[in-house]
Amino acid sequence: MKKSLGPKTIVFPTPVFIVGTYDKEGRANAMNVAWGGICCSSPPCVAISLRRATYTYGNIVENKAFTVNIPTENFIKEADYFGIVSGKKEDKFAKAKLTPKKGEYVYAPYVEEFPLCLECKLHSTLEIGLHTLFIGEILDVKAEKDILDQEEVCRIEKVKPLIFSPTDIAYYGLGQHLGQAFSIGKEIA
Amino acid sequence: MKKSLGPKTIVFPTPVFIVGTYDKEGRANAMNVAWGGICCSSPPCVAISLRRATYTYGNIVENKAFTVNIPTENFIKEADYFGIVSGKKEDKFAKAKLTPKKGEYVYAPYVEEFPLCLECKLHSTLEIGLHTLFIGEILDVKAEKDILDQEEVCRIEKVKPLIFSPTDIAYYGLGQHLGQAFSIGKEIA
Repeated sequence: MKKSLGPKTIVFPTPVFIVGTYDKEGRANAMNVAWGGICCSSPPCVAISLRRATYTYGNIVENKAFTVNIPTENFIKEADYFGIVSGKKEDKFAKAKLTPKKGEYVYAPYVEEFPLCLECKLHSTLEIGLHTLFIGEILDVKAEKDILDQEEVCRIEKVKPLIFSPTDIAYYGLGQHLGQAFSIGKEIA
Repeated sequence: MKKSLGPKTIVFPTPVFIVGTYDKEGRANAMNVAWGGICCSSPPCVAISLRRATYTYGNIVENKAFTVNIPTENFIKEADYFGIVSGKKEDKFAKAKLTPKKGEYVYAPYVEEFPLCLECKLHSTLEIGLHTLFIGEILDVKAEKDILDQEEVCRIEKVKPLIFSPTDIAYYGLGQHLGQAFSIGKEIA
């Protein structure tokens, strides 16, 4: 017997995306976003949702570009800090001692120290309510060599991404490998 | 020094959402979706992306409703099976020995045996490319009592959700608690 909790934003897992943008003066900013995910395979696209009040919102509207950066567990403090302070008020990259590197394909900075970075060109925008959905077309994925295996496949267990839980407002790590998709369910099929 | 992998759909983590719908004949169907996530806090909304070819696509267009169900690790085989076979061909609920329960607020079935189920009314639709984005307004979250704590907060470590990795096409479990959000980064702020 299930209990109704009402209309709430509860799903597990949600990601920790650090979104990189430039402001009008060319200053790099980074923000922590949990409302997001891949939304199309072709063209490859990722969606992020932002409130209008954020500094990043204006930067994306201005430049039509952003990066999505995946922090490892080791950068939990920096990732969380990016969600606490607004880029209107301070230079978050400098304070976090991280390096904004200009994208190769878009006018947006990626986080040099993070293992996995996506360069995205704004594909479309959808006003939903409190949040606006920005869909970015992924023009390039940049990965540190030490997260790739011999076949150059990016390995989640080497990235050690943060996993966000919106109910207890906490970060978790990745657990163990449980099975292969399109495979473990064949027993039933 | 990062290596460019080109335009690919790589982010970590991605979720395992089991999406429940009814077809024109009122038969319950369930599908496995990794392209999705929360996309608005108010109204509370969740986005899922589907290819037009899927049975679920037609069902959502028809009924303007779906459920998002979060399986625990224990249901990894059933969850994977829902992604292997099309509902056009077989009764997936029956085959997986799971129970489709009619939603209280929308015309869509949720998975009775799963601990966390969201009832969603179609809010908007956006054609992107190969995938179509469906935004569902969450009208109710239903949770098993054993995933709630004393304050009735839904606990991710009790849900034990599956985490999908799109690169090695595999399921992972949840790891340990690493820190609280809006807190652990205050050292830097």
